[in-house]
Amino acid sequence: MAAWASAVRAVLLDISGVLYDSGGVAGGIPIPGSIEAVNRLRHSGLKLRFCTNETQATRGQFVQKLQALGFNISEEEVTAPAPAARRMLKERGLRPHLLVHDALVPEFDSVDKSEPNCVLIGDAAENFSYQNLNQAFQVLLGLEKPILISLGRGRYYKETDGLKLDVGAYMKALEYACDVSAEVVGKPSPKFFCSALTEMGVRPQEALMIGDDIVNDIGGAQSCGIQAVLVRTGKYRPADEHHVEVTADGYVDNLAQAVDILLASRGSGQ
Amino acid sequence: MAAWASAVRAVLLDISGVLYDSGGVAGGIPIPGSIEAVNRLRHSGLKLRFCTNETQATRGQFVQKLQALGFNISEEEVTAPAPAARRMLKERGLRPHLLVHDALVPEFDSVDKSEPNCVLIGDAAENFSYQNLNQAFQVLLGLEKPILISLGRGRYYKETDGLKLDVGAYMKALEYACDVSAEVVGKPSPKFFCSALTEMGVRPQEALMIGDDIVNDIGGAQSCGIQAVLVRTGKYRPADEHHVEVTADGYVDNLAQAVDILLASRGSGQ
Repeated sequence: MAAWASAVRAVLLDISGVLYDSGGVAGGIPIPGSIEAVNRLRHSGLKLRFCTNETQATRGQFVQKLQALGFNISEEEVTAPAPAARRMLKERGLRPHLLVHDALVPEFDSVDKSEPNCVLIGDAAENFSYQNLNQAFQVLLGLEKPILISLGRGRYYKETDGLKLDVGAYMKALEYACDVSAEVVGKPSPKFFCSALTEMGVRPQEALMIGDDIVNDIGGAQSCGIQAVLVRTGKYRPADEHHVEVTADGYVDNLAQAVDILLASRGSGQ
Repeated sequence: MAAWASAVRAVLLDISGVLYDSGGVAGGIPIPGSIEAVNRLRHSGLKLRFCTNETQATRGQFVQKLQALGFNISEEEVTAPAPAARRMLKERGLRPHLLVHDALVPEFDSVDKSEPNCVLIGDAAENFSYQNLNQAFQVLLGLEKPILISLGRGRYYKETDGLKLDVGAYMKALEYACDVSAEVVGKPSPKFFCSALTEMGVRPQEALMIGDDIVNDIGGAQSCGIQAVLVRTGKYRPADEHHVEVTADGYVDNLAQAVDILLASRGSGQ
């Protein structure tokens, strides 16, 4: 039996690359076995929460898309960067210049965006034009104390037609151009994982993270004391199993296999 | 008399931000006094060479633009990244995927670009679309041993309508996304400064660099043993005079003032 499968009371699931691959006309394709795997987790008595860096849509729209693909998931179960960033902006009196996907903008409708005193970037995809990145750069360089907030720091993700650059690459571009360090909201920020644990009411050592990103999912969770298993789906590449900084607690072919092992462990009296 | 002005036999001039500010319908505006300053240097008996990271045009087109603006300059006097990169690609049998400005492409007409085994980026400006950056990223990630060549590593430059992101920001994005370190052709690479010195037939301690970029012009030249003076034109910002890593050998208001000081020093028998 896998060591990581014992003593688990709560499961944190990454979404993109674990539940489905995004892209295409339907917005994505479920990874084989993952719809059933989520249902089996629900019936197992384990606590369940989804922990995503998705910022190409509001949390509501994103969940609707997943429901249409066949997943049993509700908005309240999802920990996502935009709502966390919105709270942070309000707490600190920050007025963002947004460089985000069009579909994410409504998440910030209630936030004052006049006379920006910070720049907030998400996975803007096609909105990462030269003109838009330049504009964000100029806002930052015009601030006495530049503040750059990044919704995640992923390097790339997988869509149905291939790997795509994620927000982290553009975060690095702005960090370099403006000589600043971004504040990251989302994985791998420990604060983000902690809030997901709080919402489930469990301690780190009782939780298991399942993700396809060796740094942001696995390394991030482990830095909070959460065990973490890497799936060989989504953006996974074989080299991830020999990463210089992060070693997962386990490696599985996909979510379905992770759930098989987890439930077998419970069945055996663990 | 300024210490940097003594013992100078050869002058290396940066172009953008020192001779002119680029942008607008005419392609740029000469910085006041700079056309005359170049002419005075020519008649002084000092050796003169232009050392630029310009990659928005072929060297020939670039020189034609400067001539049209009134500068006395010829193509053979200009050390630029693209010709140096072309030589390097051929020496190493590298076939580049290009992410550069449309106007730079002819510099690489004679280079085999089939089945790319490296990515070469320059200041692509509007060509830095999400789609194009993604394509370069995918080529790199598909290589067994990714090679990224960057024509310069500038953070930003000044155009007539404001500061613009330079190639360095996009270099950083690709470095991060693909976990590689770029090879830089152009300033601040010591090899690039050395080739300019060789072309003039002078030793480092006999040369003076004049530029508006504290890191790439000043720091780069100094790392080769060349004295370097920062002008307060172009991308210059007051904070550059308190840079944490680089201290210029002198600071002048503009090129004209640098030439005043230099020629006064020679007139005084130095």
